[in-house]
Amino acid sequence: MEPIWIEGQWQLADASLSFQAHNPATGEILPGAFPVSSWADCDRALVAAGQAFKELRAVSGEQIALFLEGYADSLEARAAELVETAHRETALPVKPRLKDVELPRTTIQLRQAAQASREGSWMQSVIDTKRNIRSCFAGIGPVVVFGPNNFPFAFNGVAGGDLAAALTAGCPVIAKAHPLHPATSRLLAQCAAEALAAFDLPPATVQMLYHLRPEDGLRLVADARVGATSFTGSRSAGLLLKKAADSAGRPIYLELSSLNPIVFLPGALAERGEALATETADSGLAGAGQFCTSPNLLIVVQGTDSQNFVDAVTAAYSNRPASPLLSSEGRDSLHRSVGDLLEAGAALLTGGEPHPEAQGACYRNTILQASGGQFLADPERLQKEAFGNAALFVVCADVEELLRALESLEGNLTASIYSGTTGDDDALYTRVEALLRPRCGRLLNDKMPTGVALSPAMNHGGPYPSTGHPGFTSVGIPRSIQRFGALQSYDGVRKYRLPAALQDTAPNKAMWRVVDDAWVRG
Amino acid sequence: MEPIWIEGQWQLADASLSFQAHNPATGEILPGAFPVSSWADCDRALVAAGQAFKELRAVSGEQIALFLEGYADSLEARAAELVETAHRETALPVKPRLKDVELPRTTIQLRQAAQASREGSWMQSVIDTKRNIRSCFAGIGPVVVFGPNNFPFAFNGVAGGDLAAALTAGCPVIAKAHPLHPATSRLLAQCAAEALAAFDLPPATVQMLYHLRPEDGLRLVADARVGATSFTGSRSAGLLLKKAADSAGRPIYLELSSLNPIVFLPGALAERGEALATETADSGLAGAGQFCTSPNLLIVVQGTDSQNFVDAVTAAYSNRPASPLLSSEGRDSLHRSVGDLLEAGAALLTGGEPHPEAQGACYRNTILQASGGQFLADPERLQKEAFGNAALFVVCADVEELLRALESLEGNLTASIYSGTTGDDDALYTRVEALLRPRCGRLLNDKMPTGVALSPAMNHGGPYPSTGHPGFTSVGIPRSIQRFGALQSYDGVRKYRLPAALQDTAPNKAMWRVVDDAWVRG
Repeated sequence: MEPIWIEGQWQLADASLSFQAHNPATGEILPGAFPVSSWADCDRALVAAGQAFKELRAVSGEQIALFLEGYADSLEARAAELVETAHRETALPVKPRLKDVELPRTTIQLRQAAQASREGSWMQSVIDTKRNIRSCFAGIGPVVVFGPNNFPFAFNGVAGGDLAAALTAGCPVIAKAHPLHPATSRLLAQCAAEALAAFDLPPATVQMLYHLRPEDGLRLVADARVGATSFTGSRSAGLLLKKAADSAGRPIYLELSSLNPIVFLPGALAERGEALATETADSGLAGAGQFCTSPNLLIVVQGTDSQNFVDAVTAAYSNRPASPLLSSEGRDSLHRSVGDLLEAGAALLTGGEPHPEAQGACYRNTILQASGGQFLADPERLQKEAFGNAALFVVCADVEELLRALESLEGNLTASIYSGTTGDDDALYTRVEALLRPRCGRLLNDKMPTGVALSPAMNHGGPYPSTGHPGFTSVGIPRSIQRFGALQSYDGVRKYRLPAALQDTAPNKAMWRVVDDAWVRG
Repeated sequence: MEPIWIEGQWQLADASLSFQAHNPATGEILPGAFPVSSWADCDRALVAAGQAFKELRAVSGEQIALFLEGYADSLEARAAELVETAHRETALPVKPRLKDVELPRTTIQLRQAAQASREGSWMQSVIDTKRNIRSCFAGIGPVVVFGPNNFPFAFNGVAGGDLAAALTAGCPVIAKAHPLHPATSRLLAQCAAEALAAFDLPPATVQMLYHLRPEDGLRLVADARVGATSFTGSRSAGLLLKKAADSAGRPIYLELSSLNPIVFLPGALAERGEALATETADSGLAGAGQFCTSPNLLIVVQGTDSQNFVDAVTAAYSNRPASPLLSSEGRDSLHRSVGDLLEAGAALLTGGEPHPEAQGACYRNTILQASGGQFLADPERLQKEAFGNAALFVVCADVEELLRALESLEGNLTASIYSGTTGDDDALYTRVEALLRPRCGRLLNDKMPTGVALSPAMNHGGPYPSTGHPGFTSVGIPRSIQRFGALQSYDGVRKYRLPAALQDTAPNKAMWRVVDDAWVRG
């Protein structure tokens, strides 16, 4: 069985079960037996992480930065092997996706985090010189990261944005790899391990387990030695973990399902319906629709332009080849979700079944349609997420019905509004925006939601149930880092005992701090 | 029955039960029957708050500021009546406590919030001009505030820091008054109502219910129409509310019990043990020990100086008059907690019973003692909070035992370290600090924890179970306001549609924003 990476060593897991990965494009079983760890492995990782957390307190932001950059370099040095391995385990295209988009995104994230670590502004140090009270964010403790199936690099527990954010906050990471891409995760962890050694960080700063029994996952997030957990994945698994963590008072950040509704206002469809149909299919079918921000709910007011638009999107979905999904389980789950939507009254415009010809975990590109009235009658069932290359049109009878439908929307990561360029849609935009704004984390204009830029202004978060708390984002530095910060105030503490970030003189020239109510640098 | 303040009117409650307040100094039943609202009242308040939340989106920060200032003015205009009423309901001293400390603190909080509302820096607007992605915090939705028993003004649900913070974030408040001071809360709500009318805010921006049935409280915090809840009070009630809110994915901020441990290092006791005994008694008996930050756990290493210190604190507790507690229920609860500590093996040095002579809800000032060994053998039971004028000494055999005892500490709001001035304690300080820092929100040097300054660097929060999440504070602007913010990103949104805080030009000259990675003002 493959060893796990804990306590700074590749070690035999305490596991009675193992699993293998599959190539979803071919169904082929891939080599390597990966362990399903027992609680004993979790416990050892927790002890080691606790020790590393203490040691990290004495490690400078500069040293963590060097490690993060070294890790990024190491990923680039092994790019070919990484991309090939991830492609085999996920069937995601080598180019542009894995090689030109996702791996570069991953190294950019690590380097952005390194910059933040070096600078220290993420700590939001506040100094009240008159009262000698000072505060800043400091590491919350060991962080458990559950990575999702759909980003083998950029959201991987052992290499992605959550890891980068937690390490920058001074928190060791216990990564729980996703079982759909264990060999990719092993390679990533090897790169991390090399960089840990090269830059002399505590050896348990990064640890990785391949898989856990469900009950051990619940126990892990509730363990008092855990500072916080970050989870990206399905709503059902996420809410179980949330319940366990909540009941023990352990913070947990969730990024769950999201339909990412798009409202196409009449002016936009009249002006450029055909182009929008292409744009919709491009976004909705990217990565076989397996993005957190994939548009799954397309909302229009009925009319000739809308009908043409629905037809054009349907045609695009019909005509384009279906990409393999990440697993046959994912294909089956998508099929069940499409079935649920049909049972709730949606009509099938195209697709709706596993691809009859293609090999592997392929599902026909699928478009469904429901009326606004149907949606209003059963908003819960018609907001069932169909994760993959499927989308539901909601065609509303009129503007008032559209607005009522928006009031029934659950919390989402994103919501988009397409409107005409002449200003004719502006009055309606205002009403639509007022309903969408509190129901999403990121509001877009004339833009598909699938691009999640690495910007400090990004919000990859949103109201429940898209996440567990609308005040946090998992993408965008420094906010993603601050999730892993505990607020620590120093009241009357003698100056020579203060941490560097709260000394009268800043530890470096780039650090932003609030000194006596003004933001100052250096 | 007294009317409740909902939907912008004083209205008859839907209540089959009522309650009356008592004067805890005399036991006298006070006039006025106050309603225990049914769910119907909660539901009406929620509907009205939802409408107010929508309307507040169009209200400027300046207008909210004027209201907050008007409210503060109105409290000052009725100061005599307020102080007299609160004194009658709580037995807290008129001077200096209610008149010179707590009411001024309350109006300062409102005026600080007004300043923050006017300025808007609390929103932490971030503008990425290159990508045209922008984000800021905006109101999370209607906020339910459960006020505690121990601050009739400054933490009152209808006048305190949580109300000020929520309103500044643009969130209407449904205040749940504490049943120990309903007439005080009525007066406060009257002032709020006057100011709402005078400054033309949506009438349901502030609403108040006197009391709820427990099941309705749980239902309220879990209602999907609630943006967030803020609770200050007992651990048992708080954790029940947390469970209800968590299970529905509604954010809840808790400020629960805290022992506020103080470690007196040998050098400090050798230098100034007698003065420290006076300081300890001053802090521990202030407000009859009924502060969230009251020192309940006093930790020393055994020796002559420590013994003298324990004796001196015990003598001070014995010799000073006991102040009445807030209620006879509070006295009984304190007596039970002291009993639990005795049962867990603590020895009684003084007190330990209701005051035999004093009228009303009086308890003898109480000092208990346990050894470090006892504490280590049963840290959970010996960390039972005894809310009121009681404290537990833990006398450790040596420095190593002291350090082990600190490792057993639960999360606390504060932790204090007293050390000698010569530097002799510094090596030990470092070891003690390393253990206390992750276990508290605010770390103090040579200072009692009971003063909670209204500073932007304050942290009135801490690790679980002192609160529900270590990243938030209920005191200190702007962080206290940001609790009630949802992060809202605008991606590619046309500029004329952006909120004022995210326009290229800031809405005022005082507002701090991050523009292209630099903090700039105005």
